[in-house]
Amino acid sequence: MTNMVAKTGSTMTVQVFTINVESRVAPEFIDITDQVFDFVKKSQVQNGCAVVFSRHTTAAIKINENEPLLIQDMERFLEKVAARNAYYQHNDFSVRTVNMNEDECPNGHAHCQHLILSTSETIPIVNGSLPFGQWQRIFLVELDRPRPRQVLVQVLGV
Amino acid sequence: MTNMVAKTGSTMTVQVFTINVESRVAPEFIDITDQVFDFVKKSQVQNGCAVVFSRHTTAAIKINENEPLLIQDMERFLEKVAARNAYYQHNDFSVRTVNMNEDECPNGHAHCQHLILSTSETIPIVNGSLPFGQWQRIFLVELDRPRPRQVLVQVLGV
Amino acid sequence: MTNMVAKTGSTMTVQVFTINVESRVAPEFIDITDQVFDFVKKSQVQNGCAVVFSRHTTAAIKINENEPLLIQDMERFLEKVAARNAYYQHNDFSVRTVNMNEDECPNGHAHCQHLILSTSETIPIVNGSLPFGQWQRIFLVELDRPRPRQVLVQVLGV
Repeated sequence: MTNMVAKTGSTMTVQVFTINVESRVAPEFIDITDQVFDFVKKSQVQNGCAVVFSRHTTAAIKINENEPLLIQDMERFLEKVAARNAYYQHNDFSVRTVNMNEDECPNGHAHCQHLILSTSETIPIVNGSLPFGQWQRIFLVELDRPRPRQVLVQVLGV
Repeated sequence: MTNMVAKTGSTMTVQVFTINVESRVAPEFIDITDQVFDFVKKSQVQNGCAVVFSRHTTAAIKINENEPLLIQDMERFLEKVAARNAYYQHNDFSVRTVNMNEDECPNGHAHCQHLILSTSETIPIVNGSLPFGQWQRIFLVELDRPRPRQVLVQVLGV
Repeated sequence: MTNMVAKTGSTMTVQVFTINVESRVAPEFIDITDQVFDFVKKSQVQNGCAVVFSRHTTAAIKINENEPLLIQDMERFLEKVAARNAYYQHNDFSVRTVNMNEDECPNGHAHCQHLILSTSETIPIVNGSLPFGQWQRIFLVELDRPRPRQVLVQVLGV
């Protein structure tokens, strides 16, 4: 892969795919790696990048290892950093007036956890695939409560 | 939006815009969403991506919800994680010799907070706009002290 | 740089470079800025973006300031947030069965720290270079133990 020059002077293609996810619990690390790889393959883009983007402020995109005990460690870690039952003004519906929905649920912890995670990851496409290391997997991380979620995968390249 | 193929074989345009911001307090979550949307529209790019990039190591780019009480929660959260008045060697001007400015201010907390936030966000452009979810807003987060800041918005696409 | 329109209608080039790094201690902030700037120059791309991507789940990419005392502050900060010697189920080889290597080392802390750092950074390329602010430097952050690491730098643009 070193110092490879790919397709100088080609014209670009842009494609976008939607992954619809139903989270079942919270927190939940939902492994969407296979779907992202499938979309990259389907796009036939050989060299470029894939932007994996969560359309939510309480569900994040992260790359990490999919080992069941580690996922429990990471869930406990997020709870330690910003506990669900700590005090958040955002959860105090007696004073809050902004962005209130009819089914508003307390989720201040989820926003604070999201702040230190990410909305998106950008991954190079090399020779028609994602050059992942051995343990890299892509997760949608549900931080709030079980619900339908949307992830966009945008593929740009040649 | 599902599985849309956009503009295969088109030629690319790259445009960069600068957002000049004056932070007034610290911390401060400065909502720059409308300016980013304006630049994307002005670029006339229909499909591609927008890279929103902070030129600073103590001011971050994050996407989250713009609800005033939540913003106070997130500010308190950052202070809890890396307090302004904790001890940082970076703030000890009696021993530090590197990267010293004449008007050097203690900002070790701001660098540590920045470490767990982000320098940039990459957002897909779909059909001439950013496919944001209902609550997503883009912030420049001032972590240090009130001062002029620069954010670049780069639009790539077709 | 304000509102510059660059190379509308040009054809795109995609190039990928590999940076091979040997971390010597852990944690370690390894400054790879000069190599990234060199690759961007070598690519001859004038306007586009550079994706800097770590192929590892326990070594992160971050942009921050390279000041030796600050780096020690940031290392202590990461240790405070997710201590190496805290309990992680991922480190309990008496119960763990998944993703076990022969030379498996306890690194639960490194995964939790990586969760709040980043796998990649995307940086605009403007006029043939990266429009960095005065203090911005790119680091590969070793979180686990000394070992060979690979960073990909992908340059897209015109």
